[in-house]
Amino acid sequence: MQQVIDPSIDSALPAHVERVLAGYLDERHAGMADMAPSFGSAVESLARFVLDGGKRLRPTFAWWAWRGAGGAAEGHQAGAVLRAVSALELIQACALVHDDLMDASAMRRGKPTVHVSFAARHRERGWLGEPERFGAAAAILLGDLALAWADDMFVSSGLDPHRQAAALVPWRAMRAEMLAGQYLDVLTQATGDESAEAALSVARMKTAAYTVERPLHMGAALAGAPEATVRALRAFGADIGVAFQLRDDLLGMFGDTDVTGKPAGDDLREGKRTLLMSVGLARADAAGRTADAAVLRGALGADDLDAATVERARELLTDLGAVVDVERRIGELTTTALDALGSAELTDPAVRVLVELADAATRRTS
Amino acid sequence: MQQVIDPSIDSALPAHVERVLAGYLDERHAGMADMAPSFGSAVESLARFVLDGGKRLRPTFAWWAWRGAGGAAEGHQAGAVLRAVSALELIQACALVHDDLMDASAMRRGKPTVHVSFAARHRERGWLGEPERFGAAAAILLGDLALAWADDMFVSSGLDPHRQAAALVPWRAMRAEMLAGQYLDVLTQATGDESAEAALSVARMKTAAYTVERPLHMGAALAGAPEATVRALRAFGADIGVAFQLRDDLLGMFGDTDVTGKPAGDDLREGKRTLLMSVGLARADAAGRTADAAVLRGALGADDLDAATVERARELLTDLGAVVDVERRIGELTTTALDALGSAELTDPAVRVLVELADAATRRTS
Repeated sequence: MQQVIDPSIDSALPAHVERVLAGYLDERHAGMADMAPSFGSAVESLARFVLDGGKRLRPTFAWWAWRGAGGAAEGHQAGAVLRAVSALELIQACALVHDDLMDASAMRRGKPTVHVSFAARHRERGWLGEPERFGAAAAILLGDLALAWADDMFVSSGLDPHRQAAALVPWRAMRAEMLAGQYLDVLTQATGDESAEAALSVARMKTAAYTVERPLHMGAALAGAPEATVRALRAFGADIGVAFQLRDDLLGMFGDTDVTGKPAGDDLREGKRTLLMSVGLARADAAGRTADAAVLRGALGADDLDAATVERARELLTDLGAVVDVERRIGELTTTALDALGSAELTDPAVRVLVELADAATRRTS
Repeated sequence: MQQVIDPSIDSALPAHVERVLAGYLDERHAGMADMAPSFGSAVESLARFVLDGGKRLRPTFAWWAWRGAGGAAEGHQAGAVLRAVSALELIQACALVHDDLMDASAMRRGKPTVHVSFAARHRERGWLGEPERFGAAAAILLGDLALAWADDMFVSSGLDPHRQAAALVPWRAMRAEMLAGQYLDVLTQATGDESAEAALSVARMKTAAYTVERPLHMGAALAGAPEATVRALRAFGADIGVAFQLRDDLLGMFGDTDVTGKPAGDDLREGKRTLLMSVGLARADAAGRTADAAVLRGALGADDLDAATVERARELLTDLGAVVDVERRIGELTTTALDALGSAELTDPAVRVLVELADAATRRTS
């Protein structure tokens, strides 16, 4: 049979990321399934979760930093880099599976979350004990497995040892920052901290560092980029990453449910302390609009939030100027990010792609 | 000030393990505390948990396999190996923190478990939302952090790259086997599988592979041991590991609370499907002792288990011959383990220490 010639990695990155992830998960699954068939079936659920969609954002940023810093588009090292950056999706699988459990979210990408689907399996089969406890245990263990396999995949990706050592710096920082960001997010919701600083600090770690800055840093380190290039790419990533989170906050409040796939007002219901909300509350307080501030505070984290209250909160955030303020910040962050990118000496077509990614991340509607 | 001369690693292994763990955690904490002070305080809780006791069993088995296979007791490579094997304690920290959460255990080593202590912090400060949910999130994230840092510590321990590559084989297998073992444990409790096969399969993965066999494998790989030595050490570890778990099961049922630190009948209350229980039930069924079997089945996983029922279950397991049967298996496994050890060509004093460890693991009272 004639071999199908793949399109290049540059032109079909998400498909290539999924191909190497599928290969890696297959190999690991084969290693487990013989030894413990029932765990093998749980591993299949994890593999489906990893392979079932997602924008592959983190590998994409990392790949284009590699390319922009002079990394090859094909050949032996390109293959190793592709595997290394694809491992980022396994970290993300851990983050999502554990996050869904912590937030008690029932759906992800239109399907039941891992803890919910394992609880359902328990319930259907009439097993002993509480279904929810079984679902939580499965989600904890499969998230752990994804995190352990992320490291295994990264370390065994076939990188040149020098380059791997350089990439370990952002790799190490990124996992810690992701977990720190998640913790700050949970903590801020618990303490009810309404400050802009708290909201920005979560955005900086959970989104900017973990999703954009460190993947770019990793790609640049893999290419052996000079310090100035690494610095410029990281500055670009830090600002675009925060802008990305601010756009996400606006979509979480105003996004079309059909497009975002999330119920309207989900961020409100979860009590998320976004910058949008922080600005809205500060402006309401400063203007002495006590009743309006009370409506917003009452909606935050309200289990019984109805559509009318969501609509009222939307009107208030707009009327208070919080939406315009956040849009302005997104604009400013995008400008400083693109300036930083302009100062980096990168090769084409990476610059063009990174500009497009920045644009898509900050102007997107879903 | 005159520098205190450390006792050798051989003679004070747990203290050395704790020293390098403390150093590593300190370094990582410093890196996080500036960026996110409130996460820094959570990291301190994790560090206290890691440094606060524990037998350091896994590093001990790994160290003595390294020594037995010809690894040096001191010098540059010995320091790197000490750091690499100490990283096993961070995997164990993740396993314990997540296990305590999954089992809803309130105490560990006489102190509140991580999820319980973070829930208490939430409650004391009157934060928003449910204290238990906050505690669970903190435990999930700190367990994840320990798992990620285990890899970081292992990979940055300064090993010779060749040796590190060899040790990655057991390192990789061990984390997957630990998680598979935990999952099988949870699953067996849910399905109520009473077979000896199910109980032994959990013992093989959760205890034997993760606690003894793979740490020995890792130490041997670090020393570049020949295949025959690796095989013999693994065979020794697999059998001693299962024997260790069977001893643990007996202690969980018959152990003195003052010595074990666990409430009497804890395994029963948790519904643990141990080999001891499996043998007891099979013998009761085979002998047509329906009422006795019903007592044992009723006690398994009973929330309201009282002291009299625990005592009755103890009497039945003894009377049915299950205790003698399990003791016999411990004896047999110890014999085959020591035979395997005898066939390995190891240098002294490692052989003597490994024999002592085997003895302590299978005859211990706590």
